[in-house]
Amino acid sequence: MNLFYYPAACSLADHIALIEAGLPYKLLSIDRERKTEDGRDFLALNPKGYIPALEMNDGTILTENQVILAYIAEQSGKLLPDDSILRWQTFEALAFMSSEIHGAYSPFFKDFPEAEKLRARDKIKKAFAILSDQMDDKVFLVSNEITIADCYLFWILMVAPKSGVDLPENLRNCLTRMKAMPSVIRALAEEGLG
Amino acid sequence: MNLFYYPAACSLADHIALIEAGLPYKLLSIDRERKTEDGRDFLALNPKGYIPALEMNDGTILTENQVILAYIAEQSGKLLPDDSILRWQTFEALAFMSSEIHGAYSPFFKDFPEAEKLRARDKIKKAFAILSDQMDDKVFLVSNEITIADCYLFWILMVAPKSGVDLPENLRNCLTRMKAMPSVIRALAEEGLG
Repeated sequence: MNLFYYPAACSLADHIALIEAGLPYKLLSIDRERKTEDGRDFLALNPKGYIPALEMNDGTILTENQVILAYIAEQSGKLLPDDSILRWQTFEALAFMSSEIHGAYSPFFKDFPEAEKLRARDKIKKAFAILSDQMDDKVFLVSNEITIADCYLFWILMVAPKSGVDLPENLRNCLTRMKAMPSVIRALAEEGLG
Repeated sequence: MNLFYYPAACSLADHIALIEAGLPYKLLSIDRERKTEDGRDFLALNPKGYIPALEMNDGTILTENQVILAYIAEQSGKLLPDDSILRWQTFEALAFMSSEIHGAYSPFFKDFPEAEKLRARDKIKKAFAILSDQMDDKVFLVSNEITIADCYLFWILMVAPKSGVDLPENLRNCLTRMKAMPSVIRALAEEGLG
């Protein structure tokens, strides 16, 4: 499988998941002219133009972070709880982080007006409070075992300082713990961020 | 199962899906004081405070539209293609509509500044072009059979005029066709919108 990515972008979630899942993968970055690292036109492969995108072994392109993460879990039989409710809560956490936090990071990436940043900060803060309650004193967000939700959570937490929102203590500690995980160290190194 | 909803809100997607799936359900609206129609404190049930929320038969609350739709499909064995790629494309379309269109509707629901509306319109227009290409001349978005993606698509298309974005022809025709479906007619009537 090929993972199209930008260094430090949200594709890092899928990169960590591929390592944790033990699946073979190749990383392919996209340049400013939307050419892939192996010389192809990225827009022809993925008309949406954004990463992450996963190229399956048969050439099919899969997009949307949550969906790529679910695909990695299904392919590997890892990173999803066996318990049915915890499994649904994993997907719920992914959708929640995508719409309530990731979406609210835009004003900080694109330098939108201050009023929008203030509103976004409020939204992000409330969402982190929900995640903090969900994590409680567990090792990971949904259970004490890592799931695909944590792979995305790592990126969400890593980027939080850019928004100026302080992390609740248990989430901050989770970020610290995850930074020490071999999969995370390897993913960051492979993206040139080590 | 109980579906917590507001009339005409995005919970309509789950309502249509429950009818199409043939699952038994009860609709419970939420009032302005966040009381459920059967007299419970909605925030105690769902700290996020928003709809849709699905109360499973064992009392577990499931949130996030995409996830509730996936749960309805799993419970019923309906509304998801058998073909693996089409199944992934169904989830992909749900995530895409959620982040690129639903999220971009906020400025029109909340009357944000004109600059934000302009930017949102641009995003919505591009996203509809992607959906239009995906639908092509099929009856529904992913295949010629209805999926959970179409249940959400109906709400997304129904709300589009509020954003001032014109729908591409095939999506406009899909909206017209879906409005004539018995499940949609029944869902709208049950929400007092008939």
